[in-house]
Amino acid sequence: MTPSSNIVFSAWFRCAEGCDFRAPLTEVVYRCPRCQGLLEVEHDMDALRRRNGPDWKALFEGRFRGGAWPYGSGVWGKKEWVYPQLATENVVSMYEGGTPLLRLEGYGRAIGLRDVWLKECGVTHTGSFKDLGMTVLVSAVKEMRARGMPIRAVACASTGDTSAALAAYCAASGIPSVVLLPRGKVSTAQLVQPVSNGALVLELDTDFDGCMRVVQELSRTPDIYLANSMNSLRIEGQKTVAVEVAQQLGWTSPDWVIIPGGNLGNAGALGKGFLLLKDLGLVDRLPRLVVAQAENANPLYRAVQRAGGARADLAVEPITAATTLASAIQIGAPVSSRRALRAIEALDGLVEQASEQELADAAARADLSGAFACPHTGVALALSLLLLFVAQSAFRRARRTMKVEDRDFARLQEIRQRLGMDT
Amino acid sequence: MTPSSNIVFSAWFRCAEGCDFRAPLTEVVYRCPRCQGLLEVEHDMDALRRRNGPDWKALFEGRFRGGAWPYGSGVWGKKEWVYPQLATENVVSMYEGGTPLLRLEGYGRAIGLRDVWLKECGVTHTGSFKDLGMTVLVSAVKEMRARGMPIRAVACASTGDTSAALAAYCAASGIPSVVLLPRGKVSTAQLVQPVSNGALVLELDTDFDGCMRVVQELSRTPDIYLANSMNSLRIEGQKTVAVEVAQQLGWTSPDWVIIPGGNLGNAGALGKGFLLLKDLGLVDRLPRLVVAQAENANPLYRAVQRAGGARADLAVEPITAATTLASAIQIGAPVSSRRALRAIEALDGLVEQASEQELADAAARADLSGAFACPHTGVALALSLLLLFVAQSAFRRARRTMKVEDRDFARLQEIRQRLGMDT
Repeated sequence: MTPSSNIVFSAWFRCAEGCDFRAPLTEVVYRCPRCQGLLEVEHDMDALRRRNGPDWKALFEGRFRGGAWPYGSGVWGKKEWVYPQLATENVVSMYEGGTPLLRLEGYGRAIGLRDVWLKECGVTHTGSFKDLGMTVLVSAVKEMRARGMPIRAVACASTGDTSAALAAYCAASGIPSVVLLPRGKVSTAQLVQPVSNGALVLELDTDFDGCMRVVQELSRTPDIYLANSMNSLRIEGQKTVAVEVAQQLGWTSPDWVIIPGGNLGNAGALGKGFLLLKDLGLVDRLPRLVVAQAENANPLYRAVQRAGGARADLAVEPITAATTLASAIQIGAPVSSRRALRAIEALDGLVEQASEQELADAAARADLSGAFACPHTGVALALSLLLLFVAQSAFRRARRTMKVEDRDFARLQEIRQRLGMDT
Repeated sequence: MTPSSNIVFSAWFRCAEGCDFRAPLTEVVYRCPRCQGLLEVEHDMDALRRRNGPDWKALFEGRFRGGAWPYGSGVWGKKEWVYPQLATENVVSMYEGGTPLLRLEGYGRAIGLRDVWLKECGVTHTGSFKDLGMTVLVSAVKEMRARGMPIRAVACASTGDTSAALAAYCAASGIPSVVLLPRGKVSTAQLVQPVSNGALVLELDTDFDGCMRVVQELSRTPDIYLANSMNSLRIEGQKTVAVEVAQQLGWTSPDWVIIPGGNLGNAGALGKGFLLLKDLGLVDRLPRLVVAQAENANPLYRAVQRAGGARADLAVEPITAATTLASAIQIGAPVSSRRALRAIEALDGLVEQASEQELADAAARADLSGAFACPHTGVALALSLLLLFVAQSAFRRARRTMKVEDRDFARLQEIRQRLGMDT
């Protein structure tokens, strides 16, 4: 294998909209100062390509869940792809990642599909996938503070999970944290987490979007560092989910990946991960991507429907999101819609939606096969029903066994046509 | 490495009290028909010893979290030590085990100790360590049913976590499950799990011990299989925690292991795991074991205090457990006290207790360093304070920084004397 020490890997912020703005990852900057677009972390691809696909696989497999600290973490086992130049002593890790990829055998059988897999990103320290990104962001802050930068605290707006992850990683590294939550919209279980971890917890009489506006004000000065997914460091950790999925499937991509979409950072992250896997020769094809929105909080779905398809340059009009069981994606003004649209375009994707009934039914059905699906997972599962009828026979059988209504049947046929499947 | 296929590994039930009763693992039997003592799973140690320590390590490391299904599971990656002759197609696994071993750096610093580690057994599919044993038990039932044995359902009494694990593994394998819970003593979050997974959930107007009596009646006929920890199959899965801890510490034993104790099966399991590691040459010494009880539910502590020390043949008088925040170990008549006492004797162990205040304080203090400790973990953490003052300087520093009261100081000194430490 090419020794790692012979290649210098590096990454930096750049404007995701195409300006030539660049900044080091230790700079306190969230948007391009020229166009106000979001940033993304860009890697020195020439350096990454100097190691071939089989060597990358061997490196990642040797570390997975087992390597010397912190390489046993699912995120830091891919450190060269995440934040290569971070000093190892500044990594704040709680062995995030390495989560189960469960085969939902009974569920698949019930809906007439052979292979339905559930990536249980929530089987982690704070109980949600947010740990994956937060370990990167808080590690970056630890590095900045180690260099003497005057960051007093890290702050975020949250519907629950982000604040839990921020508070835990900050507590582990002794960095103060501030979390802004919409009053009455966060479960007690989720509220207890940042309080226990010693965060300054502020409940505001507004929704998530309102909290988001306040935290952006708070973090105007560089001594309060912004931890929301607008901050593109988190994307780097979250994209390792794609790497793990491919790895757990024996270095192949699934045919389809369905992901629930609220603020839409995670959809962008997943796409970025698969593109990197393909580019560096670890998989030989891309999966198709479905972003699944709750019908009650569907600004991306509406925009795509209006435009007749998903394009990276589509404008997504903010809406006021209605109440949904999937409370963490009850977001009307998604910060990362551009990121998601770019991923959808690159992965030949779709945006679909699920009603409250559909998401609840899908979660309940999966639970009866041993899963324990949250409503957000229910949104994605509902679309596995709608989208994954890849053979006419399975479609007919599902219609019979699942008592699909004629209305739904018409919708399924429309979707199948859009996917270019036989009807 | 010695090829696995050349050695035939096997295991069977035997009377844990020393009768010569033996039975295959697929027989529906929970107690010795001669002496009514519990059973234990005994392995063909001669076969296991035919592979040397380094080869076992290499085998386990190669599989850890990564091997072909089901060897990526923390439990089934050690299949030869757990249930060697089980047909692989009957394994019901949800990638249990492989949980983080977190270094509580801030917590250790606060109490004056360099190395305090937390094994996060709850970072798993249903959220508790019970998955580790339940995967073995439900797999055994699947094997029995595959052989045509008329098992209609699997049943358990539970304070919450056991029922969640039973229901999930049964749902995943299509086996009916029945759970008996003490009404009002199980959190809503824990109640939702077996209900979602389609178990028959019965709430009884009694405590855990009452539910235990009813489920033992229910399972008198062999068509209802008993899933409580009395069933020694679960111990086999749970003992893999010891293997993982040693593995994650680079194949060494920690100096001390502290484990909360209620029904006491897990304490026995942990001891069994470390003894096996030592016997087969994977570690060169045993840790000392501390079983930590809540002061409000402390039958083992009382018995040991009365007898002036822990001996394997000690009789543990049942008590009526008082309410404790650590509700899952609010057990007055522990089924597995003999198992625990044998482990304590073999691992030169101790039994200690923590008050409600102590367990709450310890959990809160750990949370401020990034943990998210349940009250049961709090019981163990409280005893890390009391027991782990291995150097006088650390003890003095802790007394200063933690504001230890004089009363506690006297108690600490007494414990240190018992442990043979300098005072």
